Amino acid sequence: MSTQGRLIGVGVGPGDPELMTLKAARALGEAQVIAYFAKRGRASHSRAIACAHFREGAIELPLDYPVTTESPKDEAPYREAIAAFYEEAAHTVAGHLDAGRTVAVLSEGDPMFYGSYMHLHVRLAGRYPTEIVAGVTGMSGCWSQLGAPIAQGDDVLSVLPGTLSEAELVRRLGEADAAVIMKVGRNLPKIRRALAASGRLGRAVYVERGTMNGGHCVPLAARDESPAPYFAIVLVPGWEARG
Amino acid sequence: MSTQGRLIGVGVGPGDPELMTLKAARALGEAQVIAYFAKRGRASHSRAIACAHFREGAIELPLDYPVTTESPKDEAPYREAIAAFYEEAAHTVAGHLDAGRTVAVLSEGDPMFYGSYMHLHVRLAGRYPTEIVAGVTGMSGCWSQLGAPIAQGDDVLSVLPGTLSEAELVRRLGEADAAVIMKVGRNLPKIRRALAASGRLGRAVYVERGTMNGGHCVPLAARDESPAPYFAIVLVPGWEARG
Repeated sequence: MSTQGRLIGVGVGPGDPELMTLKAARALGEAQVIAYFAKRGRASHSRAIACAHFREGAIELPLDYPVTTESPKDEAPYREAIAAFYEEAAHTVAGHLDAGRTVAVLSEGDPMFYGSYMHLHVRLAGRYPTEIVAGVTGMSGCWSQLGAPIAQGDDVLSVLPGTLSEAELVRRLGEADAAVIMKVGRNLPKIRRALAASGRLGRAVYVERGTMNGGHCVPLAARDESPAPYFAIVLVPGWEARG
Repeated sequence: MSTQGRLIGVGVGPGDPELMTLKAARALGEAQVIAYFAKRGRASHSRAIACAHFREGAIELPLDYPVTTESPKDEAPYREAIAAFYEEAAHTVAGHLDAGRTVAVLSEGDPMFYGSYMHLHVRLAGRYPTEIVAGVTGMSGCWSQLGAPIAQGDDVLSVLPGTLSEAELVRRLGEADAAVIMKVGRNLPKIRRALAASGRLGRAVYVERGTMNGGHCVPLAARDESPAPYFAIVLVPGWEARG
């Protein structure tokens, strides 16, 4: 009887390849199979961050999304297509695990924090030895690049998807000491209005491609109305010097 | 005229020395001065995590807190002592920067996320070239060790200090899809009552020393009433398999 392989969810950090952990680098140097998600027809971000550490001769397993991240998610065709895709991806990964191979699944940022890896994890972790290698989140990369203390002491930090309704964003922003708004993309105008309505626009900073080449930060109030990438982030730092 | 040194806030991650980033390891191999916070009379956690990477002959600068983290923070003597301590620490670090030395300040987890480094940052970043090396947060280390997807899709994640009032904890837990409660320590009984009142106790997990030697996770409902360390964390994962 062959031994089962191991499944490893590997966080590769926010973008700067040097913000990978020592543990992630070691795991990728040991894994026989390296899987990563990508949009169909696009290069995988996580692969670009991590590929210098791949074991020589590793089998690469690209997992190409059948639909884009900005499709209308409440519609049945989207939900069915994406569920079938994750089922098939888990099945493919399971085939390698059954053959005794260690499979590392790359995850931008941290695997358990809004990451696609989780969809494989919930399908496979009960059946195979599984390990998670925590990573630096995209939001940490952004506030570090900005040099902004995000939260301290008794601050409450809220992580809010930009997909929430405008009223919900206003309400939650009004209650948070510090906030991170993820999944900006086409939600940017709504996010800007919600920040203005909750009196937080003056402190909000827009961060695009944090820690990556071409990454930049700008006060949100000063940013133009041109389209934003889905993975842009808006930060509302909660903490200023209080002695 | 001598050149100013550089200030670097270095996140050393949640505890496992392998969860340091490649960038942190490089920065510590280059810095002439390495500063770290510690409780008086105790070894520094961050030093223990990172010391294998210190440059040979680096000057070590321990910054010993004059008071413990669990002192009553609303009282003037505490506030005055801690403010004077940070002023003096910043002054000492500035002396090395003025002498042209690069000073790395260690920070458990991520420097800008509830970290002591921020107190130096706000006093010095405007006066000296400064860089932040983002780190894996303690909470990422905990949910990775637990193997629990913390948040996905449109989930709202709330990071709540255990120092909040019981009523405030109940209210905020009732509104969050996922939650992380920090600074547990002597707040544990209150946190447990708040989770029960908000209907979230069944999903809550207590994590002590996440990713460190002796680290462990246990359902909070099953944990006894013995004292908890200040840096223990309670997680309320927001996400289960939804296909």
